[in-house]
Amino acid sequence: MPEIAPGNELAMLILEACRRENLELVDGDVVVITQKIVSKAEGCIVSLSDVEPSPIASTFARESGKDPRLVELALREAKRIVRMDRGVLITETRHGFVCANSGVDASNVGSPDAATTLPRKPDRSAERLQRELQDATGARIAVIISDTFGRPWRVGVVNVAIGIAGLNPVNDYRGRSDADGRSLAATVIAIADELAGAAELVMGKLDRIPVVVVRGYRYAFNNDGNNDGNSDGGDGGAASLVRDEARDLFR
Amino acid sequence: MPEIAPGNELAMLILEACRRENLELVDGDVVVITQKIVSKAEGCIVSLSDVEPSPIASTFARESGKDPRLVELALREAKRIVRMDRGVLITETRHGFVCANSGVDASNVGSPDAATTLPRKPDRSAERLQRELQDATGARIAVIISDTFGRPWRVGVVNVAIGIAGLNPVNDYRGRSDADGRSLAATVIAIADELAGAAELVMGKLDRIPVVVVRGYRYAFNNDGNNDGNSDGGDGGAASLVRDEARDLFR
Repeated sequence: MPEIAPGNELAMLILEACRRENLELVDGDVVVITQKIVSKAEGCIVSLSDVEPSPIASTFARESGKDPRLVELALREAKRIVRMDRGVLITETRHGFVCANSGVDASNVGSPDAATTLPRKPDRSAERLQRELQDATGARIAVIISDTFGRPWRVGVVNVAIGIAGLNPVNDYRGRSDADGRSLAATVIAIADELAGAAELVMGKLDRIPVVVVRGYRYAFNNDGNNDGNSDGGDGGAASLVRDEARDLFR
Repeated sequence: MPEIAPGNELAMLILEACRRENLELVDGDVVVITQKIVSKAEGCIVSLSDVEPSPIASTFARESGKDPRLVELALREAKRIVRMDRGVLITETRHGFVCANSGVDASNVGSPDAATTLPRKPDRSAERLQRELQDATGARIAVIISDTFGRPWRVGVVNVAIGIAGLNPVNDYRGRSDADGRSLAATVIAIADELAGAAELVMGKLDRIPVVVVRGYRYAFNNDGNNDGNSDGGDGGAASLVRDEARDLFR
């Protein structure tokens, strides 16, 4: 993929890259796209020289060795601060995602003085990209927009889905039993996050591979009532992967 | 794979299953094995009729509609209770994993009156399986033992690595920069968890596929200083994916 700039037609550029790789999108493909290029194409780029840090951002930045303008930007993008301690800023974004620095990221932006923010409506972004890719190819595909999130209790970050179109984000086994008639304990599998994580293994961080096609995962046309490959069937998008406040024990 | 019973030679059964599938393990393969069959082979099975629930287990079970013997077993397997609220029991296991019900699971055990507990030392289990698979095949492989964990803030569960041998659990980009010289924000990628999650997409829960071979992921022999495919090089196993208490903001 080329360097992405605001206003670029991402679907077209993805299809051009596919052609260069002699890859034709086919029914059932899942196209995983990193948040970074979606944000860039949508113009979710902030020039850091335009950001005036507040006192709270300056204090935290000084204590943690961070860029105060990035801290300020993360605070502005936040709906709520979850933790702001030991050099770590974890917030709830306006989308409801809980992640470090509200998803604000100054790496791989294409300019040392700029940072990206998360797409405004990542499920809508995924739906538009899905529609454009489908219209151009005639194939029925799904789109996942991925970002890299940390997790409590475990070291390191993994890719998760922040925007989804065309597949049910979960595989729901509720009400189903094992061979002994025992109901299953782990019943709702967040397959969209597992697909995003799998794609990260191919993307890496320095390889400049912002788009991955997952082929052969059976989520569509299999009539199991779960993965219906149907974007207009109320699958809820990545927003449905945000846990309800009432059911969340870690707010 | 056949139904697994205590004392079964898992490595031998995996190799027999590979032969039936005409699959020969080769250098670089990552063999992902679900916790359930490792626990069963190692005899980590408890007969529920032998479990006497304590008053606290009985009370919580009554409130949440759970089997009091399973709650009791989860409490016995716990080092610490993280949350015990709204029908959800989240504990820290003796290994340091934070998960639901201490990893105790009554589904797919092979008997309606039994539950499995997590392997005692899953990294050691992974190392032994790796050694046996390598000795039998001559191929240099990695082994991941996976289990299904929930996550705060996000709906659903995903597979993660609870035992690892032969690969560095993380891909560490610390100190590396992007094309603009900006240091990377998301620097330590938990690839072992992403591999475990990818394997779940193939395993499913009802398909009776407890072992998955991931082929083509370049973690070995690539001289990047990270994924050295070297189990004796201090990679730390899955234990190294447990976040230090001092660095954990969610204890």
